Amino acid sequence: MAPSPRDASPKLQDAMDDTVAAINRTIDRLLPNTDLAENQLYDAMRHGTLNGGKRLRPFLAIQSAKLFNVDTNRSRRVAAAIEFVHCYSLIHDDLPAMDDASLRRGHPTVHKQYDDATAILAGDALLTLAFEVLSENETHEDPRVRCELIRSLAQASGGHGMVGGQMLDLIAENKEFDLGTISRLQRMKTGKLMAFACESGAILGRSDGPHRRALCNYAHDLGLAFQVTDDILDIEADPQDTGKDTGKDEAAGKATFVSTMGKEQARERAEMLVNQAVRHLHVFENRADILKELAYYVLQRRA
Amino acid sequence: MAPSPRDASPKLQDAMDDTVAAINRTIDRLLPNTDLAENQLYDAMRHGTLNGGKRLRPFLAIQSAKLFNVDTNRSRRVAAAIEFVHCYSLIHDDLPAMDDASLRRGHPTVHKQYDDATAILAGDALLTLAFEVLSENETHEDPRVRCELIRSLAQASGGHGMVGGQMLDLIAENKEFDLGTISRLQRMKTGKLMAFACESGAILGRSDGPHRRALCNYAHDLGLAFQVTDDILDIEADPQDTGKDTGKDEAAGKATFVSTMGKEQARERAEMLVNQAVRHLHVFENRADILKELAYYVLQRRA
Repeated sequence: MAPSPRDASPKLQDAMDDTVAAINRTIDRLLPNTDLAENQLYDAMRHGTLNGGKRLRPFLAIQSAKLFNVDTNRSRRVAAAIEFVHCYSLIHDDLPAMDDASLRRGHPTVHKQYDDATAILAGDALLTLAFEVLSENETHEDPRVRCELIRSLAQASGGHGMVGGQMLDLIAENKEFDLGTISRLQRMKTGKLMAFACESGAILGRSDGPHRRALCNYAHDLGLAFQVTDDILDIEADPQDTGKDTGKDEAAGKATFVSTMGKEQARERAEMLVNQAVRHLHVFENRADILKELAYYVLQRRA
Repeated sequence: MAPSPRDASPKLQDAMDDTVAAINRTIDRLLPNTDLAENQLYDAMRHGTLNGGKRLRPFLAIQSAKLFNVDTNRSRRVAAAIEFVHCYSLIHDDLPAMDDASLRRGHPTVHKQYDDATAILAGDALLTLAFEVLSENETHEDPRVRCELIRSLAQASGGHGMVGGQMLDLIAENKEFDLGTISRLQRMKTGKLMAFACESGAILGRSDGPHRRALCNYAHDLGLAFQVTDDILDIEADPQDTGKDTGKDEAAGKATFVSTMGKEQARERAEMLVNQAVRHLHVFENRADILKELAYYVLQRRA
């Protein structure tokens, strides 16, 4: 029987499994268990970062670094920092004051497992830890590279990036946005951090030419495609598959790609974006095949 | 009539006023008004950072930098980054899930003025911006210095610093802590960021000898003295003077220096710590007089 189009190829699946294992080890080392009085904070940080997850951003960071022959110890640290930022944003996003989600990656969200205050602090500490990891010598011996990683991560994830996108997302619940604003919202909320994940390999490899730009463009299109498929999954997926509550956007009356352009056109748009993403990678010839495959996988995922 | 012991000397008052004006200008430049759809985020960030405040940490950063002849444009950026971290922690601390405070610096807290979600995001964006500011070339031309500032700020403010201290503070509401644990709590919650403020001048000035250690020791003792007087103010000050709700520790049954050792002994302890703090500065001869004066002022403040 031919594999379902929803499954990753064995090669892609292996590479993704390797990333999950490697990033879990790295996170585990960076967040050791302690017997300190404030241990609950570290438990919550571990709960929010070591409970599953596709590790898409770490995968992008590690694969892009491979294109520039970067030592994996370095790219894994950067990948872990990016995942810390992603996970902190999920922890805060899941709070009652924001999305009020009880389920994440098939487990109770951090504020459900602990409490709201602990979830707020665990998110704050993870964000801080991301920058600490990047600032350290083990991430790259050249402090100029480390500063560039830090500045780029901050720009991708702060008020002009992810956090600004989340603000727009909250405003979207009470306001009709047009397609241009929704695209900007998603680019800020999801796209910029994904773009940084792809770019981080080039930064670590001190590449500043067309290869770096190609990765940025790939990430830009992939990020939007990812968000469009996310919107589609929100209305049609089984919570058993996604491991989180679904149907929330519709219930909140939030403007999404699907609500604005309809499901069929949204699916076509995602396909167009993925094909465009893949074309950017031609500059790497066949060395970036795994990133191309990943783009097709994003289109077909069910979770 | 001799000035009340609670007032700062004209020289100290002038220097503190200069810091307030300079840091407000710097923050204003780093947080410009926009007409973007997500403008509410920036309004909230400005509300949380430009509504008064003694600017004690910026004062420490700017004065310590002066001891090493650091360009003020640099020390003001570092001072602003530290104040961003301090203000983000206040915004998150004031949330209903944490201290549930409605008043801060005489104004409504950020979540009262906007809403909880906006306050969470404004805090997140301020923390991120702090690291972005430090990573930029304008902060120091040597990326090694910038990385050291970033790593030190992250260590002072993350899980092993300020955020860990806040976690302990929450646990303290339900648990009897001994004096050792309360001291550790306060050192993490307040002391480490103050110590970084003092140390940042030495880092900017690339000093790594006894002068840097003297500033760290000064900050350590000053930070504890500050916290002890804070505990005393919490039980006896007028909210009109402090600009925030008082009597909260007692109401929450929280272990503080005052509840553990009594008000009189707490006051003696603060005095002893301040005298000790001042002695560390002898290595600067009379060049650090303003920091000595500040220490005495901390002891006598009423807000």
